[in-house]
Amino acid sequence: MKALGKHVVAEFYECDLNAINDVAKVEELMLEAAKRTNATIVDSIFHSFNPYGVSGVIVIAESHLAIHTWPEYKFASVDIYTCGDTVKPWIAYEYLKSAFSAHNISVIEMKRGIMSSYDGELNHKASLKEISNE
Amino acid sequence: MKALGKHVVAEFYECDLNAINDVAKVEELMLEAAKRTNATIVDSIFHSFNPYGVSGVIVIAESHLAIHTWPEYKFASVDIYTCGDTVKPWIAYEYLKSAFSAHNISVIEMKRGIMSSYDGELNHKASLKEISNE
Repeated sequence: MKALGKHVVAEFYECDLNAINDVAKVEELMLEAAKRTNATIVDSIFHSFNPYGVSGVIVIAESHLAIHTWPEYKFASVDIYTCGDTVKPWIAYEYLKSAFSAHNISVIEMKRGIMSSYDGELNHKASLKEISNE
Repeated sequence: MKALGKHVVAEFYECDLNAINDVAKVEELMLEAAKRTNATIVDSIFHSFNPYGVSGVIVIAESHLAIHTWPEYKFASVDIYTCGDTVKPWIAYEYLKSAFSAHNISVIEMKRGIMSSYDGELNHKASLKEISNE
């Protein structure tokens, strides 16, 4: 099965509030997580909500990382979506698991952009000429 | 089962290249999709890659939308993650499905931040006082 990307979907329950309640701290941890995967960071947005809660996304050349925190539930929801073989999403997962001191976790990995069932069948791969004409 | 969010994970195969190859067009479509869900848009990043491919994320007050396109495979990978009852992620899905003219689609909805199994058991909900002390 050939897939373009790996998407780690992690739900961190019972987190350390110090790690998920402050926008600057969350941004620092997420950027460090992204760097540790070997990703190339393109841009990021981090935002704090009133009265509390943080949302943040990091666009990487290899897809994205995202986080939403609910301090009132000690909960942080994280997506680590990477493509290519050189970037390792699970390194970011392990780093954040430790940084958030999460006591309960639900995590899965999804394959994104599964190509094998189409190859040779539907000939859906665009020719480079077709793209360059756009 | 009480969940904080809904996350629609959509894989759009065999898309119209005109809709997924141009960063301005992708941004326009994604922002329109976000608006149609009734979300409050906080900020967004859209980026085009060399030689082609677009990545974009929109932070909404109710979580985020993200897209990555592989024009060489006529493929667009979309995440629509919302929380609360007033924002409707499937409206964005339907809009993008049509806008991309996708001929093959794989789509699932994940519940994010499932709380029911913890309520009353682990008492993991932080008190407001605890948070305000951070």
